[in-house]
Amino acid sequence: MFDVIIIGVGAAGYTTAIYTARYKLSTLLIGAEEGGMGATAAEVGNWPGEIDITGPDLMDKFKNHANSFEEVTQKIARVTAVEKTSDTFKVTVQSGEVFEGKSVILATGSVKRHLGVKGEEEFSGKGVTYCATCDAFFYRNKVVAVIGGGDSAVEGAAIAAQVASKVYLIHRRNEFRAEPYWVDKVKSKENIVFVLENSIKEIYGEQKVTGLTLEKPFEGSDTLTVDGVFIEVGALPSTELALQLGAKLDDRGFLQVDAGMRTNVKGLLAAGDLTSASNHFAQFTTAAGEGAIAANSVFGYLQGEKHEGWM
Amino acid sequence: MFDVIIIGVGAAGYTTAIYTARYKLSTLLIGAEEGGMGATAAEVGNWPGEIDITGPDLMDKFKNHANSFEEVTQKIARVTAVEKTSDTFKVTVQSGEVFEGKSVILATGSVKRHLGVKGEEEFSGKGVTYCATCDAFFYRNKVVAVIGGGDSAVEGAAIAAQVASKVYLIHRRNEFRAEPYWVDKVKSKENIVFVLENSIKEIYGEQKVTGLTLEKPFEGSDTLTVDGVFIEVGALPSTELALQLGAKLDDRGFLQVDAGMRTNVKGLLAAGDLTSASNHFAQFTTAAGEGAIAANSVFGYLQGEKHEGWM
Repeated sequence: MFDVIIIGVGAAGYTTAIYTARYKLSTLLIGAEEGGMGATAAEVGNWPGEIDITGPDLMDKFKNHANSFEEVTQKIARVTAVEKTSDTFKVTVQSGEVFEGKSVILATGSVKRHLGVKGEEEFSGKGVTYCATCDAFFYRNKVVAVIGGGDSAVEGAAIAAQVASKVYLIHRRNEFRAEPYWVDKVKSKENIVFVLENSIKEIYGEQKVTGLTLEKPFEGSDTLTVDGVFIEVGALPSTELALQLGAKLDDRGFLQVDAGMRTNVKGLLAAGDLTSASNHFAQFTTAAGEGAIAANSVFGYLQGEKHEGWM
Repeated sequence: MFDVIIIGVGAAGYTTAIYTARYKLSTLLIGAEEGGMGATAAEVGNWPGEIDITGPDLMDKFKNHANSFEEVTQKIARVTAVEKTSDTFKVTVQSGEVFEGKSVILATGSVKRHLGVKGEEEFSGKGVTYCATCDAFFYRNKVVAVIGGGDSAVEGAAIAAQVASKVYLIHRRNEFRAEPYWVDKVKSKENIVFVLENSIKEIYGEQKVTGLTLEKPFEGSDTLTVDGVFIEVGALPSTELALQLGAKLDDRGFLQVDAGMRTNVKGLLAAGDLTSASNHFAQFTTAAGEGAIAANSVFGYLQGEKHEGWM
């Protein structure tokens, strides 16, 4: 029986474990995708103190820190179910193994949103990808399209332009939500072509992607010949396990937490991109802050502190 | 005219500046105490990725990162007044120099709470100190008392015990609020004497502190002979500048902010230990998260985004 089971091994999960370890709580840190979304960043730049670091390197530092404590046991496994029985939680992983904890902190992050256009599922993994920064390097001297206008789209286009011969950045608006740092970067690249106030209707190909159809013609044609389509249109919170336990979501579909990162289910807390906290601003810094708060609250809970929501 | 003036040069201020710089906002970062409260930590331990770093070293990393951007101008000066004139802010420093900004983010942190006992003010700087970890090293082979039960008191006692011959840890309760990591550390030190469920009534001496009087006798005497008294009984948010601008406080005296770190004053935001955010849990991680959120909100504000509180 662990004091705490933290589900998720990204920035939020690791930080939470660092804190629960310092609170001397026996901690199981469990998840399938080490480094989480953070490990997909080619260049971080906004983690204080690290002027120049990659996402995978930063997540390795977090991981090593969390695993430096004897209180932390890390397991790499996909959690398939969580159930609550009176005052404890049972966490089941894909292999069938079950772990028990007095409390659970969900740090399951988010998954990339799909476009829902024709050909998208068919060519997934065959030219259609949801992580431009992870996959760009497979498209050396090829032509690719990046779809979206936020940080990951614009960063993805900048990274892709370093290897691809041409990058179409397709965005349904005229302006970008991305950090101006990244927008400036893409504007300075000669091999990035902006296709603004437009969107895609269909992705087509044979074995692999060969092109896409636009909603509106661009430079006289409503198709673009491309070898890859990088879809970067935001993320959806991974709330499946929370819903299994009866936890409530906010009106945007994120896991509702209070100021102490507590859900409405006693003993169940959360941290990171899946939560309603931090003004829905998903960053390394906010994930870390939420992890610290969640650990502090779970420590109080396990010490027997009463909390109004959890009588 | 700067886009943003960030007042405070601790963890929150530096992180905010890193983010506003990446948003390409011209940023003045101004404050008198470089590194803030963070620079007083002898051992950090809970900043993810840094297993073993001192507070001053971590704050140097933050500072160098913030100053690596051409958008950031840092000035070391004490801000004495802030006023708002229509849509801009005027920030005055001790020398009389005035800076103008379209927005202000307060990251002024907190100051150590005083006990309010007889002799405390008289012997301040003459044996009475409010930063055990900063001043412990001046008490080699001396006897000191640390007052308090939170992280900084217990950490302070552990650090002091490395140099002092004897450390009395005086706490009004029987249990500690501090991280068990630190509590374990002090329990393992033979030269730390616990004086629990007790408090001090008076600090006395001549040129310097020579002893203190307890509320209740300890081992048969109501006085302790000590050379130093380290008062670590929490911190009070530094809200003076916020109050000059008419900003509202929460019921605990912290600067009230919304989910986007906005105060009730249009164009005035805040981040770090002085705010009502992060469940009042003052950490490097939460200061950094709040700084990121504040920068994101101020970027929206300067872009002309409407916000319900600030019409």
